[in-house]
Amino acid sequence: MSHSSAFGIIGGDQRQIYLARSIAADGYPVWVSCLEKGKGTEGLPAAGLKELTEKCSVVILPLPVTRNGKTLNAPFSEEEILLDDSFASLFLGKAVYGGMMEKLYGTSEVWGSVASYDYYSREELMVGNAFLTAEGAIGMAIREYEGALNSSRCLVTGFGRIGKALCLMLKGLGAQTDCCARNAADLTAIRALGCGALRYRELGGDYNVVFNTVPAQVLTAKALARQRPNTLFLELASHPGGIDLEAARRLKLRVLDAPSLPGRMSPKAAGELIKETIYHMIEEV
Amino acid sequence: MSHSSAFGIIGGDQRQIYLARSIAADGYPVWVSCLEKGKGTEGLPAAGLKELTEKCSVVILPLPVTRNGKTLNAPFSEEEILLDDSFASLFLGKAVYGGMMEKLYGTSEVWGSVASYDYYSREELMVGNAFLTAEGAIGMAIREYEGALNSSRCLVTGFGRIGKALCLMLKGLGAQTDCCARNAADLTAIRALGCGALRYRELGGDYNVVFNTVPAQVLTAKALARQRPNTLFLELASHPGGIDLEAARRLKLRVLDAPSLPGRMSPKAAGELIKETIYHMIEEV
Amino acid sequence: MSHSSAFGIIGGDQRQIYLARSIAADGYPVWVSCLEKGKGTEGLPAAGLKELTEKCSVVILPLPVTRNGKTLNAPFSEEEILLDDSFASLFLGKAVYGGMMEKLYGTSEVWGSVASYDYYSREELMVGNAFLTAEGAIGMAIREYEGALNSSRCLVTGFGRIGKALCLMLKGLGAQTDCCARNAADLTAIRALGCGALRYRELGGDYNVVFNTVPAQVLTAKALARQRPNTLFLELASHPGGIDLEAARRLKLRVLDAPSLPGRMSPKAAGELIKETIYHMIEEV
Amino acid sequence: MSHSSAFGIIGGDQRQIYLARSIAADGYPVWVSCLEKGKGTEGLPAAGLKELTEKCSVVILPLPVTRNGKTLNAPFSEEEILLDDSFASLFLGKAVYGGMMEKLYGTSEVWGSVASYDYYSREELMVGNAFLTAEGAIGMAIREYEGALNSSRCLVTGFGRIGKALCLMLKGLGAQTDCCARNAADLTAIRALGCGALRYRELGGDYNVVFNTVPAQVLTAKALARQRPNTLFLELASHPGGIDLEAARRLKLRVLDAPSLPGRMSPKAAGELIKETIYHMIEEV
Repeated sequence: MSHSSAFGIIGGDQRQIYLARSIAADGYPVWVSCLEKGKGTEGLPAAGLKELTEKCSVVILPLPVTRNGKTLNAPFSEEEILLDDSFASLFLGKAVYGGMMEKLYGTSEVWGSVASYDYYSREELMVGNAFLTAEGAIGMAIREYEGALNSSRCLVTGFGRIGKALCLMLKGLGAQTDCCARNAADLTAIRALGCGALRYRELGGDYNVVFNTVPAQVLTAKALARQRPNTLFLELASHPGGIDLEAARRLKLRVLDAPSLPGRMSPKAAGELIKETIYHMIEEV
Repeated sequence: MSHSSAFGIIGGDQRQIYLARSIAADGYPVWVSCLEKGKGTEGLPAAGLKELTEKCSVVILPLPVTRNGKTLNAPFSEEEILLDDSFASLFLGKAVYGGMMEKLYGTSEVWGSVASYDYYSREELMVGNAFLTAEGAIGMAIREYEGALNSSRCLVTGFGRIGKALCLMLKGLGAQTDCCARNAADLTAIRALGCGALRYRELGGDYNVVFNTVPAQVLTAKALARQRPNTLFLELASHPGGIDLEAARRLKLRVLDAPSLPGRMSPKAAGELIKETIYHMIEEV
Repeated sequence: MSHSSAFGIIGGDQRQIYLARSIAADGYPVWVSCLEKGKGTEGLPAAGLKELTEKCSVVILPLPVTRNGKTLNAPFSEEEILLDDSFASLFLGKAVYGGMMEKLYGTSEVWGSVASYDYYSREELMVGNAFLTAEGAIGMAIREYEGALNSSRCLVTGFGRIGKALCLMLKGLGAQTDCCARNAADLTAIRALGCGALRYRELGGDYNVVFNTVPAQVLTAKALARQRPNTLFLELASHPGGIDLEAARRLKLRVLDAPSLPGRMSPKAAGELIKETIYHMIEEV
Repeated sequence: MSHSSAFGIIGGDQRQIYLARSIAADGYPVWVSCLEKGKGTEGLPAAGLKELTEKCSVVILPLPVTRNGKTLNAPFSEEEILLDDSFASLFLGKAVYGGMMEKLYGTSEVWGSVASYDYYSREELMVGNAFLTAEGAIGMAIREYEGALNSSRCLVTGFGRIGKALCLMLKGLGAQTDCCARNAADLTAIRALGCGALRYRELGGDYNVVFNTVPAQVLTAKALARQRPNTLFLELASHPGGIDLEAARRLKLRVLDAPSLPGRMSPKAAGELIKETIYHMIEEV
């Protein structure tokens, strides 16, 4: 990676600020934009979009680039950045890295002529985020559950990246951990990790804390009815999640919604993970 | 343990309320006093001190029984309870269990004639509290450290009960964990747990999070100077602790004071642990 | 799975005997053939091939079905079983389950008309075998290495199913474990497990025990030259393996060839794993 | 530790040879005696007892120094070494380190005038040996049990140093591990490690592998009768051990006697552990 290349970071949340600082710490020239109101930007030269894109050969957009498909995701920006042809045109001839780019591409045909890459689709980012999510969820559970995870009975629904990370970490904290999964290979792996392996139809009750990682309703009214009144539920899956919230409300069960934990609980680690991922992508170009 | 015996719980914090609820759930008659302002006492019959001591053969005092040596430790009580001869006399002929009883004994000679026991001196309580403390500290670190424990470098100073629990749990979360100890057997055990073993004089820098468990200054100005500006320090030891706070302030290091974590982070588990301990003591009488 | 169906087990090693016993213990009728010289067949009715295929609707062939492509893999059989049209014809109308069936299909066109399934290609079998292989390798290493794994420095090359299982188990035994892998996502996962993550070009020396799981030469003469004279190497990958044996010989390094560990070290667990897998396949038919 | 001091190693098994090599590798002059028939002594200058004691200021005797109280424990010696006054007199003015010295002291009054130390009584040696014993036992179990430890149900009786190490390592291998102990604090700690905690009276059946670490009969006929016919038992405790062998024979249970595992399974690690311990003792003198 040539040391001459300058990086421009535009918009995003605390993760992008740690990302920018970490790239600067690696010795690269860094310019930032649309982060005016953020903390921790001291020493990072700010620039307008036009100036930044003139100065930088590599531009990093936030994760997600946009939430509404119309404006840039830039909570720390003093003004709203409209996503249109003139915005897109700024990036012609640049290498642009962003997270969840689909919506952006819909905002201007100019993007068809820009060399752009989606770091959110990279496996190393997903794996790293899974462990950050699991750790963040455990931090929330320790904080919010009036009992302790150690020596308690925990349930994880789903054995994808996040489910795996949760099984390992909960066991590592001394919790008796069960995990629900659908396919036979996952059940074998769950048992091999020293956890209890269950099919969803076998899901029993009496858990202290339940972590859902499945974005489809696996914790049905029937399954919820088997739990204790003081069981704590954490919803880690993206909308609509796996917990029947209506039934949970009826049963007076406590459900914590816990989306995007990496950015909220470990912005520094999440930002450095994005940096590592972009470095890999640049090396591979 | 005869099912006829009634338990009286007097004063204390949230732990005592969970303790009372848990004893009631075991099927014993329970009366509470000096917990008026506490949450979660629904269904627990309240009584004045005199009434309670008449009704109950076993009385449980808080942990600690008193902070100032003059009044009962009863943050949820509407009035202050003076520790004097008339208070002590209430307990003649009862079995009284409390935490850190020394100060109480100084308040009245009557205590010399009361069958009283200190549950805080019990090894099972100390072991259980050590794991609750370690888990609470990890919950705080996950919350407060902007990075992640997983894949980070953590240092634990001291290999007593809390240090041991921290080493196991941090390793279980995927943190590279070093531990400082004085004696050779501890260093051997630390290595055997898969952690890095250091003598204090070998203590290097470059840690992300540091957990002190030693109540004597082991993290001196010299040791602190070796750490990163953004290293997070947790002080788990009782006053004066092991961190040179003056030097930490000078070096602008972030130190979190984290006393009595079991009661603050896991009152339910802490209360149930006290219950189990008292049950054991009763069986042994 | 209808309880009427009878199972016929033909040939194979100790695993097939445990498999047969385990199916019988589940309450199914079982017949065995070509296992005369095996231990542990007491109570399992033996039959000739013709009789067995008449009696059983489900037939289980060994893993691998054949080594030489000409005769059945049946080390415990008193006579050699030729794989030809007449052998294949015995199975018309049966459900046949075997391991590594390709070579068998080449022995007769009749197999085209037989309902046959390869249990070796099932993910749950591969996952289960990976953990059995890792455990067997660790048992060998403990036995053969004059030092101890605990507190030692271990290297695992490759982060596939077996590499993952080895990393988890070695860490669980208190070994400082490094793992070499190629892609970025694996390196992230290795670090997240609390192990040291290395690219092959970063591979250093000074390991006590090295476990190779890669079937391509990753432990080159250059990499081997960096190790200690008394480092122990275990070759777990199938031919040609990942260790430059010529260079190892020159350097007088100790290399243990450790193929097919599940069958040799844990035949009972391996047989039960095959049974579970076949049960799943039958349920799915 | 002055680099001039020469070490003399007399008798013992493979551990003492590794001990001698390791001291030599640290750069100290080393002389060996009574190890003629041992392997791995190349490059270690041999000497008669008289010559060795003249040359060396520090002498290391084996562990145990003697088995029969009459002759030196020296399986690799060409001749038997009688323990008498003339033997003892060789060591006047030397610093003598040995393991289990009591019996030696009974062989001559001269020992009263010799500066001698017992390394076997040192806590760091006992802790280190406990982990070596646990690892060796696991190696034996993997080798001898036809199933697998991973995903199996294991029982450890006793929660002393060896029991603790076994609980940690078995859990680390993915075994569901229960541990039996007497006192409440141990039961709390066992649960906190994520293992099942049982009092001896609660000891149930259905274990795959049982490790006894208690030198008093805890696995009585009644307890043994509850286990499976194919449960494997390992006796790790010194005579008389904790397993009712008579009942085990009657029940046709398989019991492996597994004494002194560190010396048999990890002589190099055991020898280096003795070396470290002696270094500590010398520093402390």
